[in-house]
Amino acid sequence: MNEHNERQPAAMNLADAHIAIVGMGLMGASLGYDLQGYCRRVTGVVRRPEAVKEAVLAGCVDDATLDARATVAEADLVVLATPVRTVLRQITELGPHLRPGGILLDMGSTKGKICGAMTGLPDHVQGMGGHPMCGKEQAGLSAAEAGLYKNCTFVLCPLPQTTVETQTLVSELVQFIGARALVVEPERHDRLVASISHLPYLTACALVAHVAAVGEEDAVVWDVAASGFRDSSRVAASDVRMLMDILLTNRKAVLDAIEDYQGRLAVLRDRLEDADEAELRILLEEIAGARRGWRLHYS
Amino acid sequence: MNEHNERQPAAMNLADAHIAIVGMGLMGASLGYDLQGYCRRVTGVVRRPEAVKEAVLAGCVDDATLDARATVAEADLVVLATPVRTVLRQITELGPHLRPGGILLDMGSTKGKICGAMTGLPDHVQGMGGHPMCGKEQAGLSAAEAGLYKNCTFVLCPLPQTTVETQTLVSELVQFIGARALVVEPERHDRLVASISHLPYLTACALVAHVAAVGEEDAVVWDVAASGFRDSSRVAASDVRMLMDILLTNRKAVLDAIEDYQGRLAVLRDRLEDADEAELRILLEEIAGARRGWRLHYS
Repeated sequence: MNEHNERQPAAMNLADAHIAIVGMGLMGASLGYDLQGYCRRVTGVVRRPEAVKEAVLAGCVDDATLDARATVAEADLVVLATPVRTVLRQITELGPHLRPGGILLDMGSTKGKICGAMTGLPDHVQGMGGHPMCGKEQAGLSAAEAGLYKNCTFVLCPLPQTTVETQTLVSELVQFIGARALVVEPERHDRLVASISHLPYLTACALVAHVAAVGEEDAVVWDVAASGFRDSSRVAASDVRMLMDILLTNRKAVLDAIEDYQGRLAVLRDRLEDADEAELRILLEEIAGARRGWRLHYS
Repeated sequence: MNEHNERQPAAMNLADAHIAIVGMGLMGASLGYDLQGYCRRVTGVVRRPEAVKEAVLAGCVDDATLDARATVAEADLVVLATPVRTVLRQITELGPHLRPGGILLDMGSTKGKICGAMTGLPDHVQGMGGHPMCGKEQAGLSAAEAGLYKNCTFVLCPLPQTTVETQTLVSELVQFIGARALVVEPERHDRLVASISHLPYLTACALVAHVAAVGEEDAVVWDVAASGFRDSSRVAASDVRMLMDILLTNRKAVLDAIEDYQGRLAVLRDRLEDADEAELRILLEEIAGARRGWRLHYS
């Protein structure tokens, strides 16, 4: 966190910033836990009146409010931590109300449409797309925790007009919460997450749908299901509203990923049907090797 | 563990038994860790000369040997902890050498062919199929651990000729290692595990094959992959030799499960292609509910 020493005096430090986090769900509240007490002020913006008190009592913000417009007009950095299609609406509705030089960062799970919408922000607002590659299937403030972002990859999509000062402040935030910044173009991001996140969600859903149908006939299937099924199907319990937004704003890339996946499953299926042991073993060994290689890389 | 008080005096307690575990891999060595020191004697049967010393040094057995025939002739309970097709061979090769009244229990992952082979055992041998629903993707003695079986479901397939005394001793073993015994007919077991274990293995493999192909074009995919991909694909790193035996001894049930799964994935895909939000949301909510319901049941 030395880099800001070399910046111009006008540049802002994370510690001096007033952060507004719009949305006190898993992602927003977890970010609040990390930043509250370090940043000058952390304000949570919520929709439900009860959530004002809940957020403050939880301790993830200094204060919370229903008044999004007034808050984004005061804050130095506004973080949109809402489902993708809500982010899209908020870019239009709240974006113009940011103070001159105010930064609008989002944490939505798809980036093409969001970064596209951000290019329509007024000139006085600094837009930046973001996507931290972490989460869990539980949603909401009660699932939030300090340290959620630790060691995760935090994808950043600067716009053509995003200044170095903005990128520097956002980088400081990413570093402060223990994540690793990775700059990726929006369309490329969406293609990659279709493969490693949106496709696995749908394949897990198809698996659960299959097992649930088996369970209709023979409920013992739920008793023999163990850790393999648990892990393979975990993401099928994810928040549907969030996932609907993701799938519908990344439809083309997800459909492409499904198609390629279907072909690869069909190959494995055919080798099994033919009882082609030699070929099946080669395929499965290659796949096991690829997965083991990534595990080492990931951990 | 009171039940043996009511048995005939001739019946054996687990503590008095000499256990021979054939195969010192993940499952066999973990069982050894649990039983060694409680049972009168636990002998490990291995293939590689070096493995004799390794097993004894690891502390999962009292003694280890290469001589399977002599060992099974001495033991009260022989546990086959090898891949399914090795179990099938060992039933034929070792089964007839058990002492009169000796019990042959296996822990193979499919049960139809194994229990079929066990019906061919000589009359003096007590056969019993078993399948503990636990494991991990790492294989071998080094991955073994005490307590691996704790809280897992241990499927038991008694044969028509299996005596109550045999079932009692095996139940005592299952209870002692902290597992829950569940009696299931072999074909039914195989159908159920095709859905909750063998299918998820192949869907995970197809997912890894897809991501590996994407990674050939754009290696950044491995950097953005996070816990969703990690869990969805974990079982793709499983021991291929073990899985080949499973798939090839449960081919019909696995092919049926794949077919049903493919249909369910295609439905989700079609709803997404049509951008049929209402229908897609209903499907995904039903699926999320089924998965959340099981999680509560499982934990």
